[in-house]
Amino acid sequence: MKETVLLAYSGGLDTSCILLWLLEKGYEVVCLIADVGQDEDFEAARRKALKIGAKEVIVARVKKDFVLNYIFPAVAMGLLYERRYLLGTSLARPCISEALVECAKARGIKLISHGATGKGNDQVRFELSCYALYPEFSVIAPWRIPEFCERFQGRDDLLAYAKANGIEVEATPKAPWSMDANFMHISYESGVLEDPAHIAPEDLYKMTRGPSEWPDKPTIIEVEFARGIPVAVIKDKVRTEDPVAIVELLNRIGGDHGVGRIDIVENRFVGLKSRGIYETPGVKILFEAHLDLELVCLDREVLRVKSFISDRMADFVYNGFWFSPEGTFSRQCLQLSQENVSGTVTMEIFKGVARPIARRAVRGLYNEELVSMNVHGGYTPASAGGFIEIHSIRLKEFSKAFGTYTK
Amino acid sequence: MKETVLLAYSGGLDTSCILLWLLEKGYEVVCLIADVGQDEDFEAARRKALKIGAKEVIVARVKKDFVLNYIFPAVAMGLLYERRYLLGTSLARPCISEALVECAKARGIKLISHGATGKGNDQVRFELSCYALYPEFSVIAPWRIPEFCERFQGRDDLLAYAKANGIEVEATPKAPWSMDANFMHISYESGVLEDPAHIAPEDLYKMTRGPSEWPDKPTIIEVEFARGIPVAVIKDKVRTEDPVAIVELLNRIGGDHGVGRIDIVENRFVGLKSRGIYETPGVKILFEAHLDLELVCLDREVLRVKSFISDRMADFVYNGFWFSPEGTFSRQCLQLSQENVSGTVTMEIFKGVARPIARRAVRGLYNEELVSMNVHGGYTPASAGGFIEIHSIRLKEFSKAFGTYTK
Amino acid sequence: MKETVLLAYSGGLDTSCILLWLLEKGYEVVCLIADVGQDEDFEAARRKALKIGAKEVIVARVKKDFVLNYIFPAVAMGLLYERRYLLGTSLARPCISEALVECAKARGIKLISHGATGKGNDQVRFELSCYALYPEFSVIAPWRIPEFCERFQGRDDLLAYAKANGIEVEATPKAPWSMDANFMHISYESGVLEDPAHIAPEDLYKMTRGPSEWPDKPTIIEVEFARGIPVAVIKDKVRTEDPVAIVELLNRIGGDHGVGRIDIVENRFVGLKSRGIYETPGVKILFEAHLDLELVCLDREVLRVKSFISDRMADFVYNGFWFSPEGTFSRQCLQLSQENVSGTVTMEIFKGVARPIARRAVRGLYNEELVSMNVHGGYTPASAGGFIEIHSIRLKEFSKAFGTYTK
Amino acid sequence: MKETVLLAYSGGLDTSCILLWLLEKGYEVVCLIADVGQDEDFEAARRKALKIGAKEVIVARVKKDFVLNYIFPAVAMGLLYERRYLLGTSLARPCISEALVECAKARGIKLISHGATGKGNDQVRFELSCYALYPEFSVIAPWRIPEFCERFQGRDDLLAYAKANGIEVEATPKAPWSMDANFMHISYESGVLEDPAHIAPEDLYKMTRGPSEWPDKPTIIEVEFARGIPVAVIKDKVRTEDPVAIVELLNRIGGDHGVGRIDIVENRFVGLKSRGIYETPGVKILFEAHLDLELVCLDREVLRVKSFISDRMADFVYNGFWFSPEGTFSRQCLQLSQENVSGTVTMEIFKGVARPIARRAVRGLYNEELVSMNVHGGYTPASAGGFIEIHSIRLKEFSKAFGTYTK
Repeated sequence: MKETVLLAYSGGLDTSCILLWLLEKGYEVVCLIADVGQDEDFEAARRKALKIGAKEVIVARVKKDFVLNYIFPAVAMGLLYERRYLLGTSLARPCISEALVECAKARGIKLISHGATGKGNDQVRFELSCYALYPEFSVIAPWRIPEFCERFQGRDDLLAYAKANGIEVEATPKAPWSMDANFMHISYESGVLEDPAHIAPEDLYKMTRGPSEWPDKPTIIEVEFARGIPVAVIKDKVRTEDPVAIVELLNRIGGDHGVGRIDIVENRFVGLKSRGIYETPGVKILFEAHLDLELVCLDREVLRVKSFISDRMADFVYNGFWFSPEGTFSRQCLQLSQENVSGTVTMEIFKGVARPIARRAVRGLYNEELVSMNVHGGYTPASAGGFIEIHSIRLKEFSKAFGTYTK
Repeated sequence: MKETVLLAYSGGLDTSCILLWLLEKGYEVVCLIADVGQDEDFEAARRKALKIGAKEVIVARVKKDFVLNYIFPAVAMGLLYERRYLLGTSLARPCISEALVECAKARGIKLISHGATGKGNDQVRFELSCYALYPEFSVIAPWRIPEFCERFQGRDDLLAYAKANGIEVEATPKAPWSMDANFMHISYESGVLEDPAHIAPEDLYKMTRGPSEWPDKPTIIEVEFARGIPVAVIKDKVRTEDPVAIVELLNRIGGDHGVGRIDIVENRFVGLKSRGIYETPGVKILFEAHLDLELVCLDREVLRVKSFISDRMADFVYNGFWFSPEGTFSRQCLQLSQENVSGTVTMEIFKGVARPIARRAVRGLYNEELVSMNVHGGYTPASAGGFIEIHSIRLKEFSKAFGTYTK
Repeated sequence: MKETVLLAYSGGLDTSCILLWLLEKGYEVVCLIADVGQDEDFEAARRKALKIGAKEVIVARVKKDFVLNYIFPAVAMGLLYERRYLLGTSLARPCISEALVECAKARGIKLISHGATGKGNDQVRFELSCYALYPEFSVIAPWRIPEFCERFQGRDDLLAYAKANGIEVEATPKAPWSMDANFMHISYESGVLEDPAHIAPEDLYKMTRGPSEWPDKPTIIEVEFARGIPVAVIKDKVRTEDPVAIVELLNRIGGDHGVGRIDIVENRFVGLKSRGIYETPGVKILFEAHLDLELVCLDREVLRVKSFISDRMADFVYNGFWFSPEGTFSRQCLQLSQENVSGTVTMEIFKGVARPIARRAVRGLYNEELVSMNVHGGYTPASAGGFIEIHSIRLKEFSKAFGTYTK
Repeated sequence: MKETVLLAYSGGLDTSCILLWLLEKGYEVVCLIADVGQDEDFEAARRKALKIGAKEVIVARVKKDFVLNYIFPAVAMGLLYERRYLLGTSLARPCISEALVECAKARGIKLISHGATGKGNDQVRFELSCYALYPEFSVIAPWRIPEFCERFQGRDDLLAYAKANGIEVEATPKAPWSMDANFMHISYESGVLEDPAHIAPEDLYKMTRGPSEWPDKPTIIEVEFARGIPVAVIKDKVRTEDPVAIVELLNRIGGDHGVGRIDIVENRFVGLKSRGIYETPGVKILFEAHLDLELVCLDREVLRVKSFISDRMADFVYNGFWFSPEGTFSRQCLQLSQENVSGTVTMEIFKGVARPIARRAVRGLYNEELVSMNVHGGYTPASAGGFIEIHSIRLKEFSKAFGTYTK
């Protein structure tokens, strides 16, 4: 009796060839296509897989799950990898993995396969997530199997294999880079982008318009948060509350203004440095708005402990440890930190920039009277003298013991 | 015989009144005006102080010192307070304090005075820096002296005092906020800005142009670093190497494109939250360029240790501890981390955004062959399987012991 | 009408003089004596205060509260200040402050006074705790009031004042150091101990016996934890479950064997270094047992995040921020980390050392089969090769780029 | 022509069998025995390897190197893994690896082999160190090769193989655990110790005496440090300065008093938890003495930054990253922190405990006058009031905004 493999299928050339190859190897293959909000003809992908020989094809509609359980919590946690990357791909992987595990468990499947490469992060993220959620799983990662790698040494080999076996191939020539899209972002890497000194062409970007198309007027919106989670966007007096609609709206606004583009070199978990280009229009707006509100609502020292955990969590998520003891623990701590982060931030989105310009907390720690230059507000300036004097003791002692400070 | 006070003098209303008040109190007063690159008529300020009665007025030309020993090291250290603020004011204070201490030591003065308010950070920064460099100092901080505060309860009292004593007052009405300018940035706070929900007017900004004036073409420049320190900017094939000229050039470019504006709520060291608006056109470009290069040159784990120290150092600097045991130690560590950070970053400055688009390290850790999707480059994909499997052990064990992961 | 002050009263010379001085100053004084388990004749102290003129004397019995809400949580949180100090005094202060605030609120008192010195930590801990719990409080800290300090320049002045006013003074001469005792520990400082090169005499210690009296046989006990909190001690098959009885028992065992003595220089929050000697017999046993169990139950990476928070929390507690936003947040996070820390540790207490020698978790992450050298236990040794190889990539790349590693 | 392998040889059963197996596989084998101070008959081991068929046997005398470049720096860095383990084995591995690399480079050997198991840390440490120092290396790790593992499923198979091939086998029966010894410590694990609830027998310990043999009088010594590094031990007025002699002396003293035993569960880098028992008599004394002096010499905030780096470095070393970008960087930073750590600590070593009882810094930050309860020493108690008040602002604001603090 044939063993069944669950294949994370995208409809593209790679996973189509892998599907066929798995069939050749004697497996029965169930395909799962995850809809995490990418712009894709899922029905066509489904038909394609069935035509190649998949036993069953499931389209898992996890877009809303992705928003509610990954994107919004990431905003609340303030996750930013290496100070710049909003983790759009990293967050989608555990979400897709959950769908894979659910599907596999329901069918008693214990083998999983995917098209992630052997040098990348995604193999790690998929597999760690699956192992965590379903420790009995085994993995077939063709791009790590010498036999497979030798047979398919480049795109041309895949194309030839596809043609020889009647697999449809997109007519349009492939861009000279690879791309991964979801509801949160699109990432671009590989190909000509592998040279970090190669400037990416303007027409690479799909979610965000270029400067020549940017509107001449700013878009002003209000973003409302409750316990760190976005709950509404108000634009032109229209209030949007549905989580998916919020991201859609912000993707449109941010996209129009070209918000959220980055072009970076980053550290992969497998020890390589890679160059990636990302556009994350909507979530960049949410991220900046949340950071702004947080400073109003969080105590200074809580912010510092939270920041440390947030930086660690960003690493955990990037490296594939969303589902892990440390991921779970950090998530719970970060969630705790958000209890008081409720309020509204006014954002100006204009020509590539999303900038908070005003904010109002439900209950915050900003005390206008206390900070005012015009009224005392309960503050005794004279006390600051003692404060400074006591803080200066260590500094003076050090000077006395070890001599003057060098620049 | 009269005691001599050294007053940090700005030429403005506050310090002019303080000068007079100190004279009234029976002190001899030496004034020091620090030129940290702000747009100011230093000669006029000098004459004004002398006219009021200063015994001596020194204009300390520390702009170059500010660039070389504070701004550039801050860029190399990656200092960013609470994830957003580039520390323009915080960095100027120890620089000015050095000038004060040098001047005081040369004259045997042991009393210092300044116009910083009792609720702010600057009193702390000035005084801690002075105490560290000159432990024998004593401070007269009029805005913390109840008698002074009672006599001058607001701007009107100061104006009346100035007029009654023949102190010149600027003819133009004061903006409804306060401002602090230097070669790196301008900060705006107080007044109408104390309401964090009050949107700042476009005409507040002095160093950066507004969107309506932004050029329609991007400015592309190259920024060169050696050991983390900016050493040249190349624009239109013209190479600028003088440190002061580099900042001037970048301030102009960034200013034209409206780069480096932020509007934030921040945590002051004295325990208050305040709202500040900052524009830091040139240094924002340097900061982004440096961060970009650093990712190419620094090992992943070195970056993480460095990041932690950098975050701590940002707090130290903000809180006034540039000259302190921890400030000195952290600076040395951070400097060590920069040994390999040399190379060139191509920056696109356009419509409010300064974005790295290409980079080239002198010797970096980015290995194009190793990361390439087309060649092996010495990487064995099969090894990644073992890597993932070993990393999954903890995750599986946790699942087995404590049950499945919750979202 | 006279204002009422609530005085934290100890029965000793200092607070007795302060009581009288406050009465002289025209206040009515209510005294609160906190029973945090120190060896004291509370009834005598009560009578003494009443005799001096206190309007009311309350003995607050907070020993159990101290154990349940401060000592045990501190064990679970793993609090250790500067790697050595178990925070015995620091933990008692917020506990006593709670009693003070409760008492003051019930009586509508808004003034508090205490005998803590102006150079120490306790003034900070008392006052911050009280301000946090009762922001309307004001403080009278005689040892910070110049008039008081001038009048009482040393112990002799206090003794003379006491005698002149009929305040009883202990007949026995005071030890040449000061002492602070509670149910958790005794601390010794000041006097001859101020010279850090002065070796403390053996007869200083009150809770622990000296080597000459140590038993010749080890005491073996089992300590049981549930979610990080001690729930039982088993000795000679007798099970002790009452929290207060647990600490009493362990204080006796640890005391007999001389466990938990340290002699350290530490950093005070006010910027001084001081020398302190501490004995913490029972809680040292709990601390070591808990740490041992934690390593069995906590995932490796959770432990690291927890460790960071724990180190921060130790600082918060030492500095007086038990009741603070950051103290509350960190406590909640650390508590979360303990969910799986349940089990039993066998401790050998013998001749100054409390050492775990065996342990059994209720559900832990220690997997004997997995780690065994004799069975596979599901581990594939070959995978470790890939694990190492991938981890070596960064190291090799660095060698190639920047040359060989120096020692 | 035969390829040559460099084998890290110990003289024991495992590496002797591996030597023979490598010869069988057609390699020429050079053996390196590293003398890191373990109690071993190196000459006998040499003869044994030659008899089995080694082409050459080198005894690398690296004991002094181990002390100077690994043990003493580790003391200065304050390395402690998971709050308890002094890293005795972890530190020896890079030291031995250096000897291996030097030997291999001198002979043009590019293949290395060792007897470390596939579940352990040492395979990682050896290989990462070698890869870092000599990226061209390849590794033969027999205990990760399925063929080898199948052939030698346990100790009995090795014994049979040895006997069948005339390899001498120790007459004495092997202890029911494994052991690793060097000049710093002995570690015990595996076998019956794999059950963490199994109490280790008293006769397991080789470097430290048991309680029944402990002297009845304390040993008092002075340990002198210069820039964090031990430079002398003074005992009975005799001064020992030679680094090797210092460790020898302290091992004897600590060994007599049973100092430095721990019995712990720890986290291995490969994701397992293991139980280890360690005795580190001499270095435990150095560690405690250094920590004591450090608190006198290091500024409070420097200590905190240093502590963070030290904890990270302990992980790096444990995981095998002594030679790595992060290991090198952290070592440099930690070394910087020690510039002022010079002085003498008086240690009492008695019945299992090594305790500092007095200390004297060359130039320290302990200021007896400043901290004294009897003299002012330049401290103004009244300033502490302002210090506390300003620090209380955040706490009061939080109470007002979010209600009272919960326990």
